Amino acid sequence: MIYLDNSATTKPASSVLNSFYQATERFFANPSSIHQLGGEAEKLLKKSKEQASQLLNVHQDEVIFTSGGTEGNNLAIKGIALKHQGRGKHIITTEIEHPSVYEACNSLEDLGFTITYLPVDKNGVISIEDLTNSIRNDTILVSMMHVNNELGSIQPIKKIGEILKQYPKIFFHVDNVQGMGKIPLELTNSGIDLCAISGHKLHGLKGTGILYVNKKTTMYPLLHGGNQERSLRSGTENLAGAVSIVKALRLIKEREKTEVKDMYQLQEFLRNHLAKMEGVVINTPEEAAPHIMNISVPGLKPEVIIHMLGEKQIYISTKSACSSKQADESKILAACGYGADRSTSALRISMSYDTTESEINTFLKALEEAVNQLKAVME
Amino acid sequence: MIYLDNSATTKPASSVLNSFYQATERFFANPSSIHQLGGEAEKLLKKSKEQASQLLNVHQDEVIFTSGGTEGNNLAIKGIALKHQGRGKHIITTEIEHPSVYEACNSLEDLGFTITYLPVDKNGVISIEDLTNSIRNDTILVSMMHVNNELGSIQPIKKIGEILKQYPKIFFHVDNVQGMGKIPLELTNSGIDLCAISGHKLHGLKGTGILYVNKKTTMYPLLHGGNQERSLRSGTENLAGAVSIVKALRLIKEREKTEVKDMYQLQEFLRNHLAKMEGVVINTPEEAAPHIMNISVPGLKPEVIIHMLGEKQIYISTKSACSSKQADESKILAACGYGADRSTSALRISMSYDTTESEINTFLKALEEAVNQLKAVME
Ligand SMILES: Cc1ncc(COP(=O)(O)O)c(C=O)c1O
Ligand SMILES: Cc1ncc(COP(=O)(O)O)c(C=O)c1O
Repeated sequence: MIYLDNSATTKPASSVLNSFYQATERFFANPSSIHQLGGEAEKLLKKSKEQASQLLNVHQDEVIFTSGGTEGNNLAIKGIALKHQGRGKHIITTEIEHPSVYEACNSLEDLGFTITYLPVDKNGVISIEDLTNSIRNDTILVSMMHVNNELGSIQPIKKIGEILKQYPKIFFHVDNVQGMGKIPLELTNSGIDLCAISGHKLHGLKGTGILYVNKKTTMYPLLHGGNQERSLRSGTENLAGAVSIVKALRLIKEREKTEVKDMYQLQEFLRNHLAKMEGVVINTPEEAAPHIMNISVPGLKPEVIIHMLGEKQIYISTKSACSSKQADESKILAACGYGADRSTSALRISMSYDTTESEINTFLKALEEAVNQLKAVME
Repeated sequence: MIYLDNSATTKPASSVLNSFYQATERFFANPSSIHQLGGEAEKLLKKSKEQASQLLNVHQDEVIFTSGGTEGNNLAIKGIALKHQGRGKHIITTEIEHPSVYEACNSLEDLGFTITYLPVDKNGVISIEDLTNSIRNDTILVSMMHVNNELGSIQPIKKIGEILKQYPKIFFHVDNVQGMGKIPLELTNSGIDLCAISGHKLHGLKGTGILYVNKKTTMYPLLHGGNQERSLRSGTENLAGAVSIVKALRLIKEREKTEVKDMYQLQEFLRNHLAKMEGVVINTPEEAAPHIMNISVPGLKPEVIIHMLGEKQIYISTKSACSSKQADESKILAACGYGADRSTSALRISMSYDTTESEINTFLKALEEAVNQLKAVME
């Protein structure tokens, strides 16, 4: 199997799954129970949080365990909106956000909020000028992704954080689900107040996530209850889940350090070969995250190509998994200014640190064959 | 180890954990990915949902996989409140709800809602008359637990459902986290619109839950995004989690059928012995769920008893785990009309289908010893 759909989800590392298994078996008690078993579970939870905070280089109280990226993003956006609406009801985001940000913002319009969706250029990047021009007196939140899940384009988060430091009343939320483990991002003193990551994009497990919430940030919790997680996210803690995402985070951070250069090289290799392939155009900009390569094959249906590759156990995707069953145009490519021929024929190849050059070669051959075969049928 | 804190959480069944493990390894793809691997994951998700719907005797579209009981309750309450607030902003609940219901309702007061908290009698049961008297023109939701987590008292849900059928504009939400697998509850044609259960109370895994949402019910989702789960609960599906809770549900339903009588007998045995124990008073009413027995030992600190039993690897709890680190009075016992001597000295023994008579005997001896020892010290 050649799995090149790592932006949709990754194969869980066996050591991560084993940690989950062991923690579930050995520490099943409720960390809130005051007996000794509960105390042991609580200790492990605390240790996991400490480790997460070291890996993220933040304070341990700033780590909130969630059920995934979608929950982290929704909690950040709605939590700020509902808590701070008295101060203003304007939110700034972009046209190329993941649905968990885009639709969360959208849903707030029904509750009386106004949303500014910043446009992007051909490279899928917003303009700083647009951003500063859109800031109003009643702006309470800027929500922006670090790395785009379809294109791999990178927003200038560091620069934006610096600018937003001058507006201490505006909260800054970053969706770092695709960036974590690929593109470094400092959180402390960055101007970033909230930052979401997801376990299953890091060879961790589905149903796990972390939301960074800096100490001075207050929110309306989406989940009220037993006051777990600084009262920001109640519910009996998924301790084994926490253990597992911390392990996944540690592993991906290690691999990032030692292997990210190789991944950039592999991406370059992929880009060079795709650039020469007839009928194929490249959508991912030169400056992009190392794991994603988005292309279009105008005139051909991407589902058909995906299916043909799938028969050879090579797995790539159209657009993002979350929107792949909806209308066949990529909103993201359309926002970049591409016409329908290109935005309806996009394919995404997304790698992991396990992807090899030989796998990429096999994929390239299979893609070329598939494209030629389909073109022949159509002529 | 004698584990008698099953209302806080249960030990996961090995077969459930193994199902999770295998599903994670073998079906790691994103069910929304359109390639063959995604298709296989989607098929398994659909099968899990079908099985859940058969076990709950509801339609498969009515099963929403969540991250637990707290999420299910919050989604039900806030989802109805935020969606249907145009029709009215009055909600009825009780004084003895779990914090995930109580605090969720409470938080809505900040958003302009009015909440009626129905009182309970000495047995921890509301009066139907109180309920009908509190219904107003602007009532949009009644939220009530089936089985109380501290006392085991049972609300007349079936009767209430029948009454609420006459008010088709009022939604009826039931927190069945403690009742599932112990006290049967029909959902279809019951007047119940929403019903939450939690995996880790059923020998399933933490981070898993199901919210029953009947077909005609519309809600404001807490998690917007990729439109998974009927668009009511977006986020990449925790497929292995879904597989695991369905397995746990199947097992507990089987055990309920064949073993619930034994559990009632064991509870009776426990009650009879506790009734004869000096210094101990029983709080759990005669008509209660079979797994819970709440007692008080007036004058003694429950933490101390719990610790002494813990030294012998016998684990019981005070109050509910979720509130056990907060003020030392049980809100639930206070609501039942008990004075401080009793409401600050409560202990909860909660059994599972694995609990044996010999374990209960060992516990009873250890409790008696601990109480006598402490009383001697105090004299
Ligand atoms: C950029 C981005 N944000 C958020 C999410 C949502 O994360 P999750 O799948 O954990 O809900 C995804 C992936 O689906 C993503 O790619
Ligand atoms: C009656 C009741 N409702 C809700 C919950 C919350 O469920 P969970 O722990 O899955 O968040 C619990 C247990 O904590 C409970 O006992």
